[in-house]
Amino acid sequence: MAPAGIGGRVEGLHSVLAALASGRVRVLTVERSRRDLDQLVEKARAVGAKVRVVSDIRPIAETASPQGVVAQARPIPFATLESLTDRNKEAELPALVVLDHLEDPRNVGAIARSALGAGMTGLVIPSRRAAPITTAALKAAAGSFEHLPVATVSSVAALAKRVSKDGLWTIGLDPDAPTSLFGLEILAEPVAIFIGAEGKGLGRLVKERLDLPVSIPMDHRAPSLNAGVAAALACFETQRIRSAQP
Amino acid sequence: MAPAGIGGRVEGLHSVLAALASGRVRVLTVERSRRDLDQLVEKARAVGAKVRVVSDIRPIAETASPQGVVAQARPIPFATLESLTDRNKEAELPALVVLDHLEDPRNVGAIARSALGAGMTGLVIPSRRAAPITTAALKAAAGSFEHLPVATVSSVAALAKRVSKDGLWTIGLDPDAPTSLFGLEILAEPVAIFIGAEGKGLGRLVKERLDLPVSIPMDHRAPSLNAGVAAALACFETQRIRSAQP
Repeated sequence: MAPAGIGGRVEGLHSVLAALASGRVRVLTVERSRRDLDQLVEKARAVGAKVRVVSDIRPIAETASPQGVVAQARPIPFATLESLTDRNKEAELPALVVLDHLEDPRNVGAIARSALGAGMTGLVIPSRRAAPITTAALKAAAGSFEHLPVATVSSVAALAKRVSKDGLWTIGLDPDAPTSLFGLEILAEPVAIFIGAEGKGLGRLVKERLDLPVSIPMDHRAPSLNAGVAAALACFETQRIRSAQP
Repeated sequence: MAPAGIGGRVEGLHSVLAALASGRVRVLTVERSRRDLDQLVEKARAVGAKVRVVSDIRPIAETASPQGVVAQARPIPFATLESLTDRNKEAELPALVVLDHLEDPRNVGAIARSALGAGMTGLVIPSRRAAPITTAALKAAAGSFEHLPVATVSSVAALAKRVSKDGLWTIGLDPDAPTSLFGLEILAEPVAIFIGAEGKGLGRLVKERLDLPVSIPMDHRAPSLNAGVAAALACFETQRIRSAQP
């Protein structure tokens, strides 16, 4: 069965705090020795969450460093693709980040964090053969999924065609592209930016369907950038171009 | 005893390939089952390195995923600070990244990767109370330390004063700064960009001595950026501003 949403389980201080602020924590489990979590426990009680205290959190934690706290929460529902591509929303020109089968959940979380920070309006991920939004992804996102809408699609290549028809420019990061990401004026218009998988880059079919592949200018001696860093540069270049508009 | 340099031990395919290309590998140890490493072994033999084959690499590896290969190598010597701040080098205006006591070696490696990619001219790290350039840092850097000069200093605050005297602008990332990193024209001049530690930011004394603190404009709902992402944005903004110069 496909998951009903994101973040049914949350670990780590920042992520749990954000889930509490969203009012979706049901059960909070904290480690007895962690005196620094008293405030967190108070907040949980204030919103009616059940609080359990254990002597060791590690056996029930999914991530390597849960920082003494694990929460069960009402999942955040996925957004519909329609809501993300709607160009008529007030004060919000679509700027989507589309992940083409990334494999590392921490990269997915880190990209969500950069995307929200840069003011991107949504994230699209494949529903299969890709890193799902795991507890590790949520932890790396440090609460960003509480605010950044996420939609899933069965085919990234089909999505490229569809959002292009919806009037969004489809732009993809491709190290071989002659056009630079930097100074790209069309980022001020509705866009969907496609990020390729670690090491593999964008799929062939996805690449073929893009309106514009762009590259990040690099020193020739340097290895290719980490997918999370490349995505952050694209998100903040979009913010920069948009904020420079008259 | 302080280490004589960087990268006496290298793990992971990209990092070992880069160390081999630099001609500094002495002993290469590979896992027998990894047929995909045949070319690597050939390269190692061609440069006169000793090759050892083991049935399991994990007991001798320091990182969690050495990708079947561990190398002992002649360390890369540290650069002198003088060589990094020299403004008279042809075709290279100093653009340094200074790390103020980062704690995660993987962040240090990832920042080296972004710095080299963006054309920064050197990295400066504290010699104590900070993540050293470990095997994990080297792996995250994917070979970048073979080309990016690194100097160590005993005090980051003293360095800020000194490089300012040497004629470099000292710029630091500080979430509270009113000036934006983006569009900062002085990045075209000789600069040293100071990056604060994860969660803590820049030290008080370092902050006080900077010529200019700058921030990355963020959505108010977003958590602060990861140090590696913030550093990458600063490095590539430097590249963008410099390449836009007439």
